[in-house]
Amino acid sequence: MTERILSIQSHVAYGYVGGKAAALPLQCLGYDVDLINTVNFSNHAGYGRSGGSKTSAEELESIFQAMESNGFLLDHSRLLTGYIPNAEALGAVKTLAEKLRQKNPGMIYLLDPVMGDAGKLYVSPDVIPVYKSMLSLSTIITPNWFEVETLTSIPLTSLSALQKALTTLHKIYNVPHIAISSIPLADWLSHSLPSSIRPPEDPASKNENGNKYLLCITSSSIHQQGAEGVEGNQLPISDVHAQYVPLIPGYFSGVGDLFSALVLGHYLPFSSSSSSTSTSASASASSPSQSPLTNAVSQALSKTHFILLRTFSHSQSLPEEERQITDDEKDRKDPMRKIKRMRGRELRLVQSIDVIRGDRGGEEGEGKHHHHRDMLPWTGFWENKA
Amino acid sequence: MTERILSIQSHVAYGYVGGKAAALPLQCLGYDVDLINTVNFSNHAGYGRSGGSKTSAEELESIFQAMESNGFLLDHSRLLTGYIPNAEALGAVKTLAEKLRQKNPGMIYLLDPVMGDAGKLYVSPDVIPVYKSMLSLSTIITPNWFEVETLTSIPLTSLSALQKALTTLHKIYNVPHIAISSIPLADWLSHSLPSSIRPPEDPASKNENGNKYLLCITSSSIHQQGAEGVEGNQLPISDVHAQYVPLIPGYFSGVGDLFSALVLGHYLPFSSSSSSTSTSASASASSPSQSPLTNAVSQALSKTHFILLRTFSHSQSLPEEERQITDDEKDRKDPMRKIKRMRGRELRLVQSIDVIRGDRGGEEGEGKHHHHRDMLPWTGFWENKA
Repeated sequence: MTERILSIQSHVAYGYVGGKAAALPLQCLGYDVDLINTVNFSNHAGYGRSGGSKTSAEELESIFQAMESNGFLLDHSRLLTGYIPNAEALGAVKTLAEKLRQKNPGMIYLLDPVMGDAGKLYVSPDVIPVYKSMLSLSTIITPNWFEVETLTSIPLTSLSALQKALTTLHKIYNVPHIAISSIPLADWLSHSLPSSIRPPEDPASKNENGNKYLLCITSSSIHQQGAEGVEGNQLPISDVHAQYVPLIPGYFSGVGDLFSALVLGHYLPFSSSSSSTSTSASASASSPSQSPLTNAVSQALSKTHFILLRTFSHSQSLPEEERQITDDEKDRKDPMRKIKRMRGRELRLVQSIDVIRGDRGGEEGEGKHHHHRDMLPWTGFWENKA
Repeated sequence: MTERILSIQSHVAYGYVGGKAAALPLQCLGYDVDLINTVNFSNHAGYGRSGGSKTSAEELESIFQAMESNGFLLDHSRLLTGYIPNAEALGAVKTLAEKLRQKNPGMIYLLDPVMGDAGKLYVSPDVIPVYKSMLSLSTIITPNWFEVETLTSIPLTSLSALQKALTTLHKIYNVPHIAISSIPLADWLSHSLPSSIRPPEDPASKNENGNKYLLCITSSSIHQQGAEGVEGNQLPISDVHAQYVPLIPGYFSGVGDLFSALVLGHYLPFSSSSSSTSTSASASASSPSQSPLTNAVSQALSKTHFILLRTFSHSQSLPEEERQITDDEKDRKDPMRKIKRMRGRELRLVQSIDVIRGDRGGEEGEGKHHHHRDMLPWTGFWENKA
């Protein structure tokens, strides 16, 4: 049997964000994917102008209701939720997620609390409390650093803040697995890392913000079976791994949506008995320090990075007028300037099917020698009192 | 460069009809596919109950308008239109198709005049005149036999009726290429076929309607450069090919949508200079009697038939209660009876990615030895005065 995923997120006619960034990768990994569209837009918001509309909460409920009465909801072993633009719609999704969780306690729910990036919220602020109330339904969450700050109200400016944020998510919001998709590798963070995880030092080539890398962090809750800590020491509350990824210049849309889909697709907690038909998703030989989460995240990071590099290199190959750098003032004067840049930076997903599938026998060659790096254990994360 | 297709048809959350049946195959063949949803439903109508709504003409226009103002419409070298539920929405699509055709006279437009099947209309009847007025915009149309009858008002009960219908479509509606996706191989049709195309006779195993096979017919208009016919003989107005396909018992939804997408994906009129990245779509070594249309249709037929067989065999492997045969009376008493049957008959698309891609090096083996049969020329089609 093929596993079936219910994906609830945005739809755009043109380009690859939301459901358009998630469906193809998940299908290529062997999943049947049901797609509920929280918006129906012509294109993503980054273009500055778009047509179409948001799906109302009533409309979503009418779709959920029909799916339930047709008995489809029992078919889904996995749930993926992404961009949901306001509290009413998110409330409807929450009710559905509760129902699914109740019917199927073993369901794998990847909740991507899509709220914003780089310090800016791009959903209605009234979704924040709803997301907080939904976190305990999830199996995995995939916030970026800004979404971690938004959910925990803790600015991530030090190791102890990061410890506090993870503690809040695991202990107060009862999230089993967290993958912080990206956080700029600022000095405080780099200095906190074990040397095994730290990227090679090369201060000369740092970019204007001083950050040449992004860090991805996973944290899986450790259930302390009644233990209160030995000799007064606090036990670690989670198993933390990390991996740095070189920053690719400029902004790309849909990267978080692609990453989340790949994490869900590669997450195989019952690996030997997995029903996924994909060779790629199931053939991850894991070393002892790896868990189903770290395996999934390292595969997702590696494939996302590959697709980004391919997208970046495509955008660089375009005529000059289609790859003008971000300049808010010039963009305001000439809206087509930004639009052309955005078009050139749509994810090269279709061109990367072989890499997503992890094909080894392809004639193209490019996907053939594609390997992922393991996430590395962040030893001493919880001992380090910064 | 990857070619870009604009697909305008239905969206269902669950299962594979309309855009859900078209997008994955086209992406697997190497196309970027933009998806505009003419409806947003929970599932196809065959289930008997569904949630969601149709997209209004205004909403469609708002999406078209944004895509135009963002300059996306120049990106599409191909257009695919399918299920569009009423005349207002179809009118908006017509306006868009006219605009695209004007901007890009070389655009390949596959118009699937989705109106009904097996004698029943499942769109509003007011779409019929709009479709008639759009036919001249198309490159290829893919009606089933009922849609040919609906467009031409000619009941297909004899060879001369078929000749008249093709003449009407080519000469009055100016359609360059026609692929009649399926027509039951009734006696009149079978007897009209050259023996090279006729299936082996086996009257004992005919089904209750007397039809064990479906016939697919292609017809490409021949431009008679000023010639009026030699010695009073009428020249053939089109090049006709055909191929029979064994009928698979029971009803499957989305088959026509899948077929049309595969025809468009495999249609390569400029084969050597084709920009498709797919090895599968471009590696069709053609024999002298073959054209870009017959190549595309034979590939589409073969892959569609393979996926149908796989779907049928999956449905037969399900527990008995999920594969009860169609029985309108029993279905009325127990709606879940029909729903379960429908679920078991959703196309096995995700499970057939290797076949769609035409992978040869795959480890699975099943897609490896998959070959298509050429469409055979229907010699003497236009001479035969039945």
